[in-house]
Amino acid sequence: MTDSPTTAPAAPAASAGEVLTGYLTRQAGAFLRALPQAVGEAGSRPGSLPASAAGADDLLRAVRRIGGALHTFGTAFDAGWAVEVRTELRWLLDLLATEPGYRRRSVRLLAALDSLADTDAAPGMLAGHAGAPKARALLERQLTLARTRAHSALLQELRSARLHALADRMTLLAGEVPLLAGSARRSPAALRAEAAAAFADLGTAVGRLPLDRTAQPYGGDGLRRLAPVPAEPGGPAGPPSDADAVLAADDRPWHRAGVLLKRARYALEVTGASADGTGAPTGLDELDVILARHHEAADAAAAAAAAARTPRITPATAYVLGVVHADQRLEVEAARYAFGRRWPELPPALAGPAVVPPPAPRTE
Amino acid sequence: MTDSPTTAPAAPAASAGEVLTGYLTRQAGAFLRALPQAVGEAGSRPGSLPASAAGADDLLRAVRRIGGALHTFGTAFDAGWAVEVRTELRWLLDLLATEPGYRRRSVRLLAALDSLADTDAAPGMLAGHAGAPKARALLERQLTLARTRAHSALLQELRSARLHALADRMTLLAGEVPLLAGSARRSPAALRAEAAAAFADLGTAVGRLPLDRTAQPYGGDGLRRLAPVPAEPGGPAGPPSDADAVLAADDRPWHRAGVLLKRARYALEVTGASADGTGAPTGLDELDVILARHHEAADAAAAAAAAARTPRITPATAYVLGVVHADQRLEVEAARYAFGRRWPELPPALAGPAVVPPPAPRTE
Repeated sequence: MTDSPTTAPAAPAASAGEVLTGYLTRQAGAFLRALPQAVGEAGSRPGSLPASAAGADDLLRAVRRIGGALHTFGTAFDAGWAVEVRTELRWLLDLLATEPGYRRRSVRLLAALDSLADTDAAPGMLAGHAGAPKARALLERQLTLARTRAHSALLQELRSARLHALADRMTLLAGEVPLLAGSARRSPAALRAEAAAAFADLGTAVGRLPLDRTAQPYGGDGLRRLAPVPAEPGGPAGPPSDADAVLAADDRPWHRAGVLLKRARYALEVTGASADGTGAPTGLDELDVILARHHEAADAAAAAAAAARTPRITPATAYVLGVVHADQRLEVEAARYAFGRRWPELPPALAGPAVVPPPAPRTE
Repeated sequence: MTDSPTTAPAAPAASAGEVLTGYLTRQAGAFLRALPQAVGEAGSRPGSLPASAAGADDLLRAVRRIGGALHTFGTAFDAGWAVEVRTELRWLLDLLATEPGYRRRSVRLLAALDSLADTDAAPGMLAGHAGAPKARALLERQLTLARTRAHSALLQELRSARLHALADRMTLLAGEVPLLAGSARRSPAALRAEAAAAFADLGTAVGRLPLDRTAQPYGGDGLRRLAPVPAEPGGPAGPPSDADAVLAADDRPWHRAGVLLKRARYALEVTGASADGTGAPTGLDELDVILARHHEAADAAAAAAAAARTPRITPATAYVLGVVHADQRLEVEAARYAFGRRWPELPPALAGPAVVPPPAPRTE
């Protein structure tokens, strides 16, 4: 899990093909090294769920980077091949990310509940509340069950023919990157232009975020003033069916920005360039962390809301879950505020003119 | 409800006695003008509860100012007399403030609930949630009942001998302020010294607030890291019995700061001086509004928590009340953050060296 092989700038004289080949073979190699370890971690503890899985983390890391490079620099490859590989990588990504997602949700919700009940230093808002232990037990039970199911699904798929086929593709990629004939000798400037396009996509997505509403702390954006639910494709806009649907619709553009931000980060790794060309940190990592926090808090809030719909819980339990739900939505809001503060600090050369896009029709 | 009679600076040549007499006769006159109007408002609508009561507001205004002046400039009066009058004013203050307090709590909670369900522009976190209408009806019912009871108590006491006796005292005060023999001819500097002492008290109280914990927005101070419950006088410190007790203990130093802030504001009115001696606004009014918001949100949060303990409510109702409770505690936190940002902006001459008191042993 060291960054050095991926962030080392390519030698200045390398062609676009050499840069891409170097990056993808390194990442495919990382994939192949991490895969048996991840399989071992998942399989060696049939009854337990490992709290930390370095192999799975390394595997996820490589999967994300290969998928990102194949997307951002897609013109260098056969389009059908790139789409196929990306589809398979996406499948593995979802598979690998599900159980850690439940684990983080569980850690986050139980920590929130405990800190609302008592911290080391002082009691919290739910100190001594009768519903807190029951809500804790309910959340723990539901999320452990979900983790167990995700783990079983992962175990099964790690032995599947589909995974073996993907591993074979990665073995080929680690040996030779199938560049299109014309693209191998392009200049590195072509890669930089494609990375810039990835940043432009990010800038456009960020331009659609309601950053004006999150400019002040405690604006209540994550709790009170959510974006209207967009009309379903092919259907008229109707009233929201429930709170979850509204929240999901409100969070979606932020999640989308998170995806594009990762893609832009990885594009920067490929070109080995930062805003000023020195390879210095660009703030993108920090923004990535903020949006990951947004995503996790939004998921945790949804899990608390779902737990509150469990039949036959007591009102005291439901009350505590309501507090926890609001607390996690507050984290969502805090992440939006933090993002809105940091985003304008990005080096302008990175974000480019797309940071402040022309006012687009607001469709969401 | 105009500020002009109270905030006009005293003529520079006036003695301390003339300044105090002028202020108190004006305020006693305001009391006597507002009293029949307040009684009429309360009595003329036996079945209804007026949404706005200008007479009661004016009466409260005068009651607060007379009580504040008698406290801050207490050395000018017979101590026994001043304490008696302040006790009676405090009684009337509580009586007058209770019903408007419930009214504001009701408005605040129902507005919060509605904005969590739907705003004009967009849906909120509880959009379409089944518990929202029930929680709304429950809160409305409980707070209307509390208002009605407070109103009946007020009606009864407005006809009491105790009120008539207080009104008689105010009639006397409007005619002649009973200054101690030696205090009448003191220089206005003596008043300024006593006003400075009121500011020093405020500075000491603010110095004990955990402003370091509220320095960053979204610090979770109002929800998660509350101050430990202070030991009961005469008893050992025990675990908190319930969340309400912990919250009340955590909010108490803020409420105390609010009381001292009002007293400092009124002292400034009496001396007719602002920090730079020009009579310009000092920021105290704004801080007063912030702490009033803190108090109201804390009360509203407590009301939501109390409603959640109603027997036989559904889990969905309890869940919504938990969200509303957390939402109001978030308002508490936002008020603390706002206070911590504004307090250092007070003119130093106003707040004096007591703004940064020496580190005192933290007893709460």
